[in-house]
Amino acid sequence: MSLVAFLQAQNCTTLPSSWRHPEARTDTWSPDYYQHIGRVLEEGKFDIGFFDDRLAMPDMYAGDHAETVKNGIRATKLDAVTCLMSMASVTEHLGLGATYSTTYFEPFHVARLFQTLDLMSRGRAAWNVVTSVNDNEARNMGRDAHSFHLDRYDRAEEFMEVVMGHWDSWDDDAIVADKANNLYAHPDKVRRLDYDGKYLSSRGPFTVPRGPQGHPVIIQAGSSVRGKQFGSRWGELIFVVYRNLENARKEYPAMKQLAADWGRDPDHMKLTTLFYPIVAATKDEAEDKRAAYEKLANPMDQLLLLSEALNFDFAKKELDEAFTDEEINSIQGMQHHIERVKGMGINNPTVRDFMEITGRGLLRNAWVGGPKEIADQMEEWFTEPVCDGFVIGPTHQPGTFEDFTKYVVPELQKRGLYRKEYTGTTLRDHLGLPHPEIGSWKTKPLAAE
Amino acid sequence: MSLVAFLQAQNCTTLPSSWRHPEARTDTWSPDYYQHIGRVLEEGKFDIGFFDDRLAMPDMYAGDHAETVKNGIRATKLDAVTCLMSMASVTEHLGLGATYSTTYFEPFHVARLFQTLDLMSRGRAAWNVVTSVNDNEARNMGRDAHSFHLDRYDRAEEFMEVVMGHWDSWDDDAIVADKANNLYAHPDKVRRLDYDGKYLSSRGPFTVPRGPQGHPVIIQAGSSVRGKQFGSRWGELIFVVYRNLENARKEYPAMKQLAADWGRDPDHMKLTTLFYPIVAATKDEAEDKRAAYEKLANPMDQLLLLSEALNFDFAKKELDEAFTDEEINSIQGMQHHIERVKGMGINNPTVRDFMEITGRGLLRNAWVGGPKEIADQMEEWFTEPVCDGFVIGPTHQPGTFEDFTKYVVPELQKRGLYRKEYTGTTLRDHLGLPHPEIGSWKTKPLAAE
Repeated sequence: MSLVAFLQAQNCTTLPSSWRHPEARTDTWSPDYYQHIGRVLEEGKFDIGFFDDRLAMPDMYAGDHAETVKNGIRATKLDAVTCLMSMASVTEHLGLGATYSTTYFEPFHVARLFQTLDLMSRGRAAWNVVTSVNDNEARNMGRDAHSFHLDRYDRAEEFMEVVMGHWDSWDDDAIVADKANNLYAHPDKVRRLDYDGKYLSSRGPFTVPRGPQGHPVIIQAGSSVRGKQFGSRWGELIFVVYRNLENARKEYPAMKQLAADWGRDPDHMKLTTLFYPIVAATKDEAEDKRAAYEKLANPMDQLLLLSEALNFDFAKKELDEAFTDEEINSIQGMQHHIERVKGMGINNPTVRDFMEITGRGLLRNAWVGGPKEIADQMEEWFTEPVCDGFVIGPTHQPGTFEDFTKYVVPELQKRGLYRKEYTGTTLRDHLGLPHPEIGSWKTKPLAAE
Repeated sequence: MSLVAFLQAQNCTTLPSSWRHPEARTDTWSPDYYQHIGRVLEEGKFDIGFFDDRLAMPDMYAGDHAETVKNGIRATKLDAVTCLMSMASVTEHLGLGATYSTTYFEPFHVARLFQTLDLMSRGRAAWNVVTSVNDNEARNMGRDAHSFHLDRYDRAEEFMEVVMGHWDSWDDDAIVADKANNLYAHPDKVRRLDYDGKYLSSRGPFTVPRGPQGHPVIIQAGSSVRGKQFGSRWGELIFVVYRNLENARKEYPAMKQLAADWGRDPDHMKLTTLFYPIVAATKDEAEDKRAAYEKLANPMDQLLLLSEALNFDFAKKELDEAFTDEEINSIQGMQHHIERVKGMGINNPTVRDFMEITGRGLLRNAWVGGPKEIADQMEEWFTEPVCDGFVIGPTHQPGTFEDFTKYVVPELQKRGLYRKEYTGTTLRDHLGLPHPEIGSWKTKPLAAE
């Protein structure tokens, strides 16, 4: 069973109310904070902690950041790789993942950055591939408007080909560093990429040799139809959100089948599903914690985050005002939210429909209980199987990870579901992923295409 | 007196022959390597270690990387900030600087990255601002051709205005994190930038609060006329190369005057000049070391690095063939090399002229001696003054820094020229630079303009 910690290098978790939790730390810009979380996760034998990212404050609501800053809704957001390196310095085994956008950076840079992270962490790096969707990010990063959803993924496919191509530039045994004979590396074991695509080009040769993992692990989380197609081609660790067992029974084998359709071994793509544990010594205590937690939220949390996720200013509409067809079709943001709302059979949803159906900014997928209840549910899902592991979402930091490590991990270990000690040194070891041979990422075209 | 270590996250130093040195470490992609250097520099009470950068392997010579890889001429090049964070983890005082190009990244990203580095290192970060000049970098980073030299600096001026503007977005006391009253930060103490220039735009609000230094220290090293104009406006720590006392007596006050012309206090711009120490217990031993070192170089070292620096394939010409006026004018690379060659009164230099006059790839500015000789020369320059400190260039790593720390630092300390212990915690403390107030970077226009 894989355990993934979902981290945010910001003043709150994905739940904006989290910073208001009495036990939440507020020194979220200090190395101590990230190092403490790293130590807790390693004590809990987590496979990996990974940071999401966003290149803008969510201030689309009413066109101003006053409410965002006041309510503390992701008002700060730090560079994730730099925070990861703080965690790397106090841990030895924990995998370290960061999100990096394919929209605003060149693939040569991303390939170099993450391969360096892999070397500096001795084989523990992962890159969560995202395409950016948000107008505010575009404006911070010097772009006027945003490309459309499908184009974005086509560009991302090219991006992956460049990054993977660069990571394949050095054979594992290219460097000899023979001082006496002036032979640093074998010229025929270092290749130039010469990539020239529709959207991207990069020449090479790449300048970072391969490390203990060959190359970093690829994380992906796309949940739209196009996102799943992309993730099943490239992803080695997939971050999914299965809302219930029924949903998981449908989605899990379908995603594994997609990987097989690309000609991949489905076992080399691990699916981990997100839940937010609220756990205590007993079920009653945990229920009390949940009740207290739910009091921390406020409607502004939702409206600000919905505005950002859908790239639409929700201040423009009353709570019970319906969206027109034109408005719905114009929304360029995260398509899976639109798909979910449409999937409820509501063609012209109101603001309140969006708030309730997406649950964005609210605590959803909470699993509440004592060690036994949480472990029971994890065991049921994992042994069926409808997942290969779990993403632990924090209601607050570092408390969620401390509680999970204290209460749930020992119970999972007792049942033989989870490691008692790390058995390998790299993230690939923890996840049971093979060392990637040069060119092994090249898939056959999808039969459907 | 400020001491700066000039570092390279690559398989050699700026001197390509350095990896062939018998005492050079070859594990230049391991965290141990960078951590060891960090510990040595902190033992030597250095103000800062800073990494250069280049986004391409120097393979312009003959259009192929075979000689580059074989001769080990900057064949590897890692992400510098990630290597810095490795060093941060084992040091407490040492300043940490990295080079980042204004050509290939968005200022929002650079501002966020370095402000995060400043927070994660507890106030020890510096950014070395460069504009990129090299065709191979352009091709790796998805650009066809390179912008011209003057345009590049105009864009860089805008870049600095955006970065500084973002760093000024949060007042030092903006964040209160008042959980009970749901006031994370004062909305009126966080500002949006709304920058819209000729080359660059960025909206904000910025997402990283100010840290112990206010913002990172700005390093600059431009040595052309335009480069000095830029550096004297923005630079707080300037990396110069004064080849002799006579040259320094002219250049040092001229650069300080340029800063004054911008309306700045010249004391808030520290000029540190590069030399390569070859030091041992005695002068004779040091001379032997130099003689042994010079045997490590070969002509290919020079031809490959000249091709890259000047963005011109030197394989196209014979060693004694002269450049035409048209060829000289077409060169878009580092202008100061051209200026130096022209300054010798040679209008149509040969390849050999370039090799000899620039000395690129060879050991120049070596100061050779025992502790007394090196300290004497440093004392003479510093007390005149013709510099505010020194950049220590490594003939090999980590040996140069170990020798310097062992032999020269105690001698400087004995003479009262150099700190025995760090007296502050931030890089600004070490350098004697003030905490920057919001907006303090805004200069008056140059009188000449």
